[in-house]
Amino acid sequence: MIEYSSIFHRPTDNFAYPFREELLHIRLKTKKNNISKAELLYGDQYEWSDDSWVSFKQELHKIGSDFLYDYWHIEIRPPYKRLRYGFILHSGNEQTTYTEKGFFQEPPQDPGYYFCFPYLHASEVFRAPNWVKDTVWYQIFPERFANGDESINPPNTLEWGSTAPSPDNFFGGDFQGVMNHLDYLKDLGITGIYFTPIFKAYSNHKYDTIDYFEIDPQFGSKGVFKQLVEKCHKNGIRVMLDAVFNHCGYYFEPFQDVLKNGENSRYGHWFHINEFPLKGGERPNYSTFAFVESMPKLNTQNPEVKEYLLEVGRYWVKEFDIDGWRLDVANEVDHQFWRDFRREVKKIKPDLYILGEVWHDAMPWLRGDQFDAVMNYPFLTNVINFFAKETISSKEFTEKMTAVLFQYPATVNEATFNLIGSHDTPRILTECGENVNKVKLIFTFLLTFIGTPCIYYGDEIGLTGEMDPGCRKCMQWEKENQNRDLFRHVQRLIKLRSKEKLLSNEGQIELLTPAENSSCVSFIKSTGEESVFVVLNSSGNEAKFSIPFNLKGKKVTNLLDGTVFASEAEHHYIPLKGYEHAIFKF
Amino acid sequence: MIEYSSIFHRPTDNFAYPFREELLHIRLKTKKNNISKAELLYGDQYEWSDDSWVSFKQELHKIGSDFLYDYWHIEIRPPYKRLRYGFILHSGNEQTTYTEKGFFQEPPQDPGYYFCFPYLHASEVFRAPNWVKDTVWYQIFPERFANGDESINPPNTLEWGSTAPSPDNFFGGDFQGVMNHLDYLKDLGITGIYFTPIFKAYSNHKYDTIDYFEIDPQFGSKGVFKQLVEKCHKNGIRVMLDAVFNHCGYYFEPFQDVLKNGENSRYGHWFHINEFPLKGGERPNYSTFAFVESMPKLNTQNPEVKEYLLEVGRYWVKEFDIDGWRLDVANEVDHQFWRDFRREVKKIKPDLYILGEVWHDAMPWLRGDQFDAVMNYPFLTNVINFFAKETISSKEFTEKMTAVLFQYPATVNEATFNLIGSHDTPRILTECGENVNKVKLIFTFLLTFIGTPCIYYGDEIGLTGEMDPGCRKCMQWEKENQNRDLFRHVQRLIKLRSKEKLLSNEGQIELLTPAENSSCVSFIKSTGEESVFVVLNSSGNEAKFSIPFNLKGKKVTNLLDGTVFASEAEHHYIPLKGYEHAIFKF
Repeated sequence: MIEYSSIFHRPTDNFAYPFREELLHIRLKTKKNNISKAELLYGDQYEWSDDSWVSFKQELHKIGSDFLYDYWHIEIRPPYKRLRYGFILHSGNEQTTYTEKGFFQEPPQDPGYYFCFPYLHASEVFRAPNWVKDTVWYQIFPERFANGDESINPPNTLEWGSTAPSPDNFFGGDFQGVMNHLDYLKDLGITGIYFTPIFKAYSNHKYDTIDYFEIDPQFGSKGVFKQLVEKCHKNGIRVMLDAVFNHCGYYFEPFQDVLKNGENSRYGHWFHINEFPLKGGERPNYSTFAFVESMPKLNTQNPEVKEYLLEVGRYWVKEFDIDGWRLDVANEVDHQFWRDFRREVKKIKPDLYILGEVWHDAMPWLRGDQFDAVMNYPFLTNVINFFAKETISSKEFTEKMTAVLFQYPATVNEATFNLIGSHDTPRILTECGENVNKVKLIFTFLLTFIGTPCIYYGDEIGLTGEMDPGCRKCMQWEKENQNRDLFRHVQRLIKLRSKEKLLSNEGQIELLTPAENSSCVSFIKSTGEESVFVVLNSSGNEAKFSIPFNLKGKKVTNLLDGTVFASEAEHHYIPLKGYEHAIFKF
Repeated sequence: MIEYSSIFHRPTDNFAYPFREELLHIRLKTKKNNISKAELLYGDQYEWSDDSWVSFKQELHKIGSDFLYDYWHIEIRPPYKRLRYGFILHSGNEQTTYTEKGFFQEPPQDPGYYFCFPYLHASEVFRAPNWVKDTVWYQIFPERFANGDESINPPNTLEWGSTAPSPDNFFGGDFQGVMNHLDYLKDLGITGIYFTPIFKAYSNHKYDTIDYFEIDPQFGSKGVFKQLVEKCHKNGIRVMLDAVFNHCGYYFEPFQDVLKNGENSRYGHWFHINEFPLKGGERPNYSTFAFVESMPKLNTQNPEVKEYLLEVGRYWVKEFDIDGWRLDVANEVDHQFWRDFRREVKKIKPDLYILGEVWHDAMPWLRGDQFDAVMNYPFLTNVINFFAKETISSKEFTEKMTAVLFQYPATVNEATFNLIGSHDTPRILTECGENVNKVKLIFTFLLTFIGTPCIYYGDEIGLTGEMDPGCRKCMQWEKENQNRDLFRHVQRLIKLRSKEKLLSNEGQIELLTPAENSSCVSFIKSTGEESVFVVLNSSGNEAKFSIPFNLKGKKVTNLLDGTVFASEAEHHYIPLKGYEHAIFKF
């Protein structure tokens, strides 16, 4: 019995979008195991022959399932760029045609009944900058990466790594420190640095901006920063800064002016103030980030504030040639602000990367007019729960990751910012109960999956740490205290990713349904001509992974050791040691 | 058994939107008759007490059903403008909590699991101009409304109404004609005129623009048009023009230049040309509207074309003070063009009405950054099928109209452009098999429902006509040949609508499920304090309508005759003659 009420499609967002200049992706969800075959019936609404609408049929491909749904996908090249379409769905002997006007036993003759993707405009293809998908990011929390210039240490700077990080201690990390270690980063192979905030602020994390046009003196001068960006660029490393536009710091001048002058301040409208005089405390009488009295929310709908912040956005791109903006608490700022922000910064640098911090479903920001990507927290959650904590099975992991992929257009997934830890989460090694083999496996997954991967400083050499402030330890620079084996593992994978385009972001990805109780997860990325296949054994025990497709007659390369074999059997098993992975190309 | 796979919500579009500055609407769909009770569990993600997230519960209201789904709705005022929420759903003894991360037996404690509406920004309330919902439109096809100046008749002008309209005959309608009949329009009570195209063009319908900056000489000069707009404004009538930006006419100069100069034309990029030289015929080798060789598609992604058309948009607003733009074939023009168009024209006149022609699901154009409304063709289809052709039952009509309402935010529905006929459809009287009583009932529905109603010239006095060109007859000005009874019916309803705010667009609308086999449909609009209730008998036979709610103790006014009664019974029947309607306020 077809479960009609479960069938869902709407010609927008992840369900219908231009993929490349002349291709459309169309997707559908149906109740799990309810539909045996799905076909697209489609045509150009104006193409008629002998008073009949000219239509075609093509089968959709089931790209995966989650707990509740099967997900279907098809790629179409509409000859005149216009498309009317519906879905012919089969279940046993039953058949129905799903259109915008509902379900019909027989396909309606009138194209007006069907879903409509009115025109495929080249300008409407979602395009994150091309370089992003080939980039491996490295996140630096500047106060804790390296102290290269003691002359600018803030007051009470502690000796590097001498004690545990606390919410308000300082170790003096700075730009000179980053510059001193560019060779280390090049050696690791990363090609982008994401700096958490660097502007003048009070705290060690600098999310409480005092001046958006000044670099915090503890990090160095504008000259040093300029030099750093130039050196990075020379070494093939892009630079992304953190824009904290949702709120400012307590010592931001306009806010100080309001505190001082109350209703008479000319900056009253820069904030969301319920009543004067301002009162802080547990529930401030003005809007803030969360309820933090020292982080007043900026009124980005006010034209003056907007222009001020847009100028911040422009300034660091124009003057320092940065390559990306990561937008803090981006979801709580209004959409129109981000639309204008995009227009302004892309005018200066069309291939600037705009990355929003959104922890939940971010579709409304990813429609092409705002962000290029969001931080992929659901990726993080699933990775931790499966590989690190083992609270979900390989089947659940596969289903949840499939749902994450289906939530956005493939174009969005290509540029999504995948992370396995940050200054806001416990360290990955700590999450893994200090099991380095698990961390290695997670890095393998991170560095072969779709999206742009990010390494949180120190994770590659085995830093540990609980939730903030624990995860903000000083970087370990003594080689003998670094886990060099882990470092080499990450290094090797980055190299492999840079050589094999399919490992970064060519091709379409699909997670394969694991066998019952299997400890292995696997996925395949395919251009149609070539494919890579990655399998990961999440358990400490050996596993025997049965490849669920036929390789007979294909030339298969093991990308880890370079060996090549011509497959002769129809069925292959891969023997995997505990926490081992395999990567094949064919 | 809860049918989990049918339950759908996503925090965007019609499912979650700011309604007024401090109110959010949240909506949900579930399988029909599957869920007995739905509650919203919600709170501010940062509000915690004793390590527990502070959350609240409130019941959703079932606002209607269609063939497959029940639709649920709730209005929430988030105290700090931020909202995390999920749905607690009940079905018999079963209960589940629906969140962004799936379904849970017990509500998760962590707000991070829940759906997120991150911040309610005042600037993000969808706001069509306020005047629109109180406007009654009158659509004029200028060639056929009235000939007021014979000196500018086009060649071969036929005597007014002397013969049937054909695709290429002319009767000489003009602006002077409209001016001569403003009293008629005032008497009818309409408050807005929508003109189909008036710019220089070749055809009688003028959708094949030759010059976007000139008025077609057969209609009059710019001076006369200016005078017409001024007179309209003095008489409380707004003016909306038709913008044909998807394509131009064959004689548009840039296209002529391409025809003449081929690859060497500087206008090559103004169009979508597959190869030179241009070839027309059945499948032109350049993009067109449909496959009409004489209507080449404009390349609105080209900055020069865009600027040219934006200037058209600005020019007629700035110079002639028009109040609205109706956008022809709006769905086939790129979204970015419309975003820029909105910005530019609203800069000049913030309360300009932007109305798109979109026949299908138009959500992607109605997110606040493009149109104020679309032409409500599904409204037209349902009205014709139910009242005129009787091909669907009162139950189906109610379900289909409920689905139409649920498809968009309530803010969008308030300004939607409802029509019962146009220059592209058969005349309503013809659709009704010339049954005037049906037409009257349809006008009652049109003029009391939510949205901004439009009357196609002549429908109010009973013009007939099949599909184009039949529906483009000359207006009938001989009173004895007008159906004055129909005119007075329409006039009376317009007056009633203008007096009773609830009949235009205050309050929330709900269609009531009709009794089995009932010929009556009904709806209620309510502000919470006051309600109006409209019931319409679609049959020629008498009907007895049982009011499905309790009026006991309420003062009820019959808005058709002004009589007032205090209701004493719990249950009321309304006796209705064939095609009769009733309108009550309480």
